[in-house]
Amino acid sequence: MQRDAEATRQRLIEAGRAEFAAHGLAGARVDRIAEAARSNKAQIYHYFKSKAGLFEAVWNSAVGEIIGGLPFDVEDLPGVAARLSDIYAEHPDLPRLITWQNLERAGQPLSGLGVEEVRRRSAALADAQARGVVSDRFDPRVLFAVIVHTAMLWPATAPELLAVVDLDDPGKRREIVRQVVTALID
Amino acid sequence: MQRDAEATRQRLIEAGRAEFAAHGLAGARVDRIAEAARSNKAQIYHYFKSKAGLFEAVWNSAVGEIIGGLPFDVEDLPGVAARLSDIYAEHPDLPRLITWQNLERAGQPLSGLGVEEVRRRSAALADAQARGVVSDRFDPRVLFAVIVHTAMLWPATAPELLAVVDLDDPGKRREIVRQVVTALID
Repeated sequence: MQRDAEATRQRLIEAGRAEFAAHGLAGARVDRIAEAARSNKAQIYHYFKSKAGLFEAVWNSAVGEIIGGLPFDVEDLPGVAARLSDIYAEHPDLPRLITWQNLERAGQPLSGLGVEEVRRRSAALADAQARGVVSDRFDPRVLFAVIVHTAMLWPATAPELLAVVDLDDPGKRREIVRQVVTALID
Repeated sequence: MQRDAEATRQRLIEAGRAEFAAHGLAGARVDRIAEAARSNKAQIYHYFKSKAGLFEAVWNSAVGEIIGGLPFDVEDLPGVAARLSDIYAEHPDLPRLITWQNLERAGQPLSGLGVEEVRRRSAALADAQARGVVSDRFDPRVLFAVIVHTAMLWPATAPELLAVVDLDDPGKRREIVRQVVTALID
């Protein structure tokens, strides 16, 4: 029983992720999510209380997936940004979820895990700066934010730019992201 | 009569801009736009054919406003990015519109003016690189995209980052954007 419950919960999170990535929180339809998860609306309210509660579960799970897939090596910050660029290219629903979260929820409630990791990684950057491994021209928290933002270069870019820049190949995008971060820490 | 028509059209574009910035294209309500513009739904369909047609008019107008407010001085690219950061801070509806356009429309149809300006400004960058005014470590179109993306650092940043970085002051944000672009063209 316990295992069935967990399996249902997981299917709802997966279906919710696809629906929210496509339509955002306001545009998502609970009945479509229930159908895609071979479940029903009552189960969604049972497990997550509300549509927003399911979004929060999806968000926490997505943040966990990004953090888990992105080891943080302060000796290779260009590589970290390049890897994040690849994660976004491989899972285009992730940058979309990030963008919806930013647009529709102004980040409330935040992912506790996300905030904690930003703190931990900024502290690791501060330490690397103190050891002289990374240039200290930026505040470490700012540098962390810039690295993460740089990896969003393509998914967040206005389409008029993409029409001119014409970089469909994720490999080329990754190398540009790597080059930008290299310039920042020189 | 001609002048009244133009005034109505302008009021609808302004009301549409507020509504689309808040709710996006799918979430926007045509009746709310009509009411805010002291007009009616029939007028919206008369002037813009559809809700999407009004979004397109809003988008073209917003792109024109950004371009008009952002002289492009290749000798001061950090200043260009800083000015764009200020524009976004002063008009938070602009980065929101850009983000909705990106999320909901995958950029179709594009702003012709926007594409043309990206081409013109990239060509000016290529020329500055040829003259040795700007480092040629980046393709000029890529450099232009990176400058524009850098100015979106704060409005596009995941809230977990903002919670840690804590930079509410647009003046401080502007200086960071300036510093990032300075590092890129060194």
